[in-house]
This record gives sequence, structure tokens and C-alpha cells, in this order.
Amino acid sequence: MKLNILGCYSATPRTNTNPTSQVLDINNHLFLIDCGEGTQVELRRNKIKFSRIKHVFISHLHGDHYFGLVGLISTFRLLTRETDLHIYGPKGLKEVITLQLKLSDSWTNYKLIFHELTSKESQLIFEDDKVEVYTIPLDHRIYTNGFLFKEKAGDRKLDINAVLNADISQAYYRKLKQGADVINESGVVIKNESVTKDPAKPKSYAFCSDTAYNETIIPIIKDVDVLYHESTFLEKNKNLCQPTKHSSAKQAATIASKANVGQLILGHYSTRYDDINQFKDEAQTIFENVELAEDGKVFEF
Amino acid sequence: MKLNILGCYSATPRTNTNPTSQVLDINNHLFLIDCGEGTQVELRRNKIKFSRIKHVFISHLHGDHYFGLVGLISTFRLLTRETDLHIYGPKGLKEVITLQLKLSDSWTNYKLIFHELTSKESQLIFEDDKVEVYTIPLDHRIYTNGFLFKEKAGDRKLDINAVLNADISQAYYRKLKQGADVINESGVVIKNESVTKDPAKPKSYAFCSDTAYNETIIPIIKDVDVLYHESTFLEKNKNLCQPTKHSSAKQAATIASKANVGQLILGHYSTRYDDINQFKDEAQTIFENVELAEDGKVFEF
Repeated sequence: MKLNILGCYSATPRTNTNPTSQVLDINNHLFLIDCGEGTQVELRRNKIKFSRIKHVFISHLHGDHYFGLVGLISTFRLLTRETDLHIYGPKGLKEVITLQLKLSDSWTNYKLIFHELTSKESQLIFEDDKVEVYTIPLDHRIYTNGFLFKEKAGDRKLDINAVLNADISQAYYRKLKQGADVINESGVVIKNESVTKDPAKPKSYAFCSDTAYNETIIPIIKDVDVLYHESTFLEKNKNLCQPTKHSSAKQAATIASKANVGQLILGHYSTRYDDINQFKDEAQTIFENVELAEDGKVFEF
Repeated sequence: MKLNILGCYSATPRTNTNPTSQVLDINNHLFLIDCGEGTQVELRRNKIKFSRIKHVFISHLHGDHYFGLVGLISTFRLLTRETDLHIYGPKGLKEVITLQLKLSDSWTNYKLIFHELTSKESQLIFEDDKVEVYTIPLDHRIYTNGFLFKEKAGDRKLDINAVLNADISQAYYRKLKQGADVINESGVVIKNESVTKDPAKPKSYAFCSDTAYNETIIPIIKDVDVLYHESTFLEKNKNLCQPTKHSSAKQAATIASKANVGQLILGHYSTRYDDINQFKDEAQTIFENVELAEDGKVFEF
């Protein structure tokens, strides 16, 4: 998986920082997560090919997470896109996008497919042969979901020397990859484990923004490889967390620790702080493996 | 008047060009004209104080002219603005902005006052003691207005030496400024013209974008000091003008010439052209006083 941060600051776009948007690349399948104002320009700046985005996930309908979507949809139209675009987000998103297309009399020449979310339980919302995506219900001022991306376990890998030595017909390779025992050319049963290896461990990524400290997400994100968790504030401004339903860096780290994740990426910083390293320092008092999101930064895992 | 171009390219925002938006400063009163995606960042980049914008004029509801408005309104809220904001634009604008504020549960703490436009005739839509603003009905794919900003004639200027020599009581100065004759301390009638001068000639500015070549605007913009007229295409792509309802540089210059304007500013360039100087060269075959809009450029007149 490759995660390209397009924007990771809260609230208003500025000349040097962008609101939330990121692109998750899983085996060359690009998932766009949130789409604040200016996202289409950041996609260009990060040299991400527009046509490869087929699925967009919107966490909630605060502007810093979706005001760039209608412009992106319009630009796709100008670029004469033909591929379907699937959009997952809270109920209301379809109405607001459709109204704007109607007012501009600019219907897309590709299919826009909205998957509107209303459930307060985690649910499977996307699945293909490689990836599953689940919602992560969050605790924010309006209806909000995070998203959990889970690679599926791939086929078993052939140990090609062992397979050749065991004198197995090529016709059985597919069965071997699926984990079955097979009979070789001499009629001997070959145990699967003796000629195959475990596939690469499937990776998982959880995006959780925006949310107050919320332990109910822990079972959903348990053991993920990478967790992006918002940390709008530092503990010294902890009094702002509950009324705004945001988290501090320490709270994000506490969730990471309790959910036993591999790595924590912090983001959604309030623009009141000049030095974002303070977020890392604070989180590391609780959880060691912390990285800071920054606009334009790429994480590979 | 001072005109600050924030963006002057058509269609999609790019890393180095912005969609339409400009700020017209008339005696320190700022009028925002159109508001493509990213306008709030360009306002910051051009160091224009957000709080001084009290009136926004939207020409039409194509995204490159207004997708930045809802973000700007939201940012005003975050900056705890208290001043009313007046928005002039086509019917539908109120619905789309209101829907987005409702979905985000983020009502403004200042008053948003929509003045929705539906008339196909030029009409006076704003007036204070210094300025009048009229619509300029344009010919585009959807309902579109340009805007004509006319300074009102100011008071006559006192020729202070002449006034003192004529022995006129200060109590009459206001009447003099208003153009009246007065009686001096010796009881002699003093002709107004003998002690006052003409005020500075009131300036006028017309914004016309987007539009096909449209001679019906000529009587409305007749003799304006400065005309901003869209020139999306060059004549070599003239075949695109009518279906898209845009103008070529030559057509913009023809309007400027027939309307006898002082200066023509070109803008709304299609991003297909690498060198915008071609627009100026083409226009100057018809009309001499042509300037090119560029993002970040300031015109004073």
C-alpha cells in the first residue's frame, strides 16, 4: 500500500497548507479519501493520474473534507472521462453534488454512482478480489465515518523448485495456489505445505478523521498495520476537544496503543500551532511508532 | 479604482493558474467578482483583508466562477466574522449554499443576504453614496450577467484661494460643493463656477464573462473606462466560440471598439494556449489599448 497525503490540516485552506485529502494506492487501485477544497490541484501537484481514481470516500460533510469534490467531478467531465466514479459518503452528498451539476447544466458524460451512508454500525461498503473497505463510525459533531481498508489474503506462493522436484503437472498449479493437496505424475499425494509458501501478509489501513476520543472504534481497527488518526489539538488545549469533537495527539496515541496498531500517522492539525513536531512528541509519550502527515508526503507500507 | 485579478483562466484550476475571481476596490470598498475554487487562498496570497469584502457578485453558476464561494463563506464563519455579506448571483445560488451549510450544520454567525437575479434586462442591483452596480445580461450557455460598476459624480471641489478671495462664509462651503451660487459677506452673489472646480471624472468598470459575441451589451457598457471581456479562444479556434458561447480575442476587441471603451482587459483564457500574448496581438488588430489579465496582476485606473 502507498498513502499519498494531499492535505492534512484542519479547517481553512491556506497558501501553504491544504485541508484533508489523501490517496491510498493498493496494488495500483487508487482510493481517494476526503476531498477538501483544492484537492484537484494537489492531485496535479502530486502527479496522480486523475483517470486512475475510481472510488472516492468522504468521511463527513464539513467543508474541509469535501468542498473540492464537485470541482473534481466537473474536471473529470472536462477531461472527457468515461469510467464510472463511485462515491461513498453521508446521505446528502448526492443531493448537493446533483444540485450543482443541475444548476450548471453540466451533467457528467460518465456515470456517477453514489453510495450514501447512514448506518451507525461498521459495515462492508466495498469489495473486490483484492480489497475490502469497512466504515468506522466516528464521534464527531455531524455524522462521520472513518474507513478501514483491508487487503484480502492472496493466493499461496508456489515454491517453484519444490514443485518441479515433486513432479507435479502444471494443470495442478492453480489448485496448489488455492491451498489444496494434489497428486503428482507418479500418483503420490503431495502435501500443499511441502511445495508452497505463505502469501505476503495482507496489509490494512484505517483512516479516522474527524473524531473525538472514542474507544468504540478499537475493536474495528484492532491490529491494523497503519492508523491515520486525527490530532487536531495538543493536550494543552484539551478543553477544546470535547466541544469540537476532536482529539488531542495524546488521545490519538492512546487509541493506537489500545488497538495495538503497527504505526500511527497523525494529521488534521489545527492551524494554531506553528510547529507540528509537538504533536509527535506528545503522542510518543504513549505510543512509540508515530509519524506526522505532511502535505505531499508519501508513506509506503 | 483598483482591480486585483485573483484568477483569469477558464475551466479547471491548475497548479499555476486559477479560475475566475477578481477584487474591485472603489475608494476602499471591496467588491468580489466571481469566486472560482481556491479564491480564498488567492485572497490570502494577494494579502486582501477578508473582512473588507462585503459584497460578492457571481456572474453564473458554472463551477469555475463560483465553486470557491461556499468555502469562503465557511472561512468567514471560522474567522468569527460579524459583518453582513451580500451575495448577488443567479437564482439557485442561495439554495446550493444553504444546503451545504445545512448539511455541515455550520450556520454562519453573520448575516448572509442573497440577492438572486433572474432578469434578462440590465438592472440596478446595488447603490450607495459612491457607487452604482448594474447587471449586463450576457449570452452564455446558462443564465449569466456581467456587472457594470459606476462611480457617482462626487461633489465639486472648492478652489480654496478663490473662495477666500471672494470672502465667502464657511457656512456656505457645503452649498458650493453641491454646485449652488452663494452670497458673500459683502452681500455680493458669487457664481459657483468662479470658486469651484469640476470633481474628478467618475470612473466606470465593466466585467463581461462568460459570453459569446453579443452586440446588445454595447449600449450598456458604452464609454466605460475599463472593460474586462472574456477571450476564451483565438480566432483560429473560432469554430469553438458559438457552441460553447465564448468569445475570441478579436470579438472582445470588436466589442471594445464599438463601445468606445477606454481600455480593454482580456481574460478567461482557454488553457489550451501556452502563450497568452497571442490574445493581445490578435485583439490589437482591432483595438489599440489592450492589456492582458494575469493571476495576481493589479490594474489601477
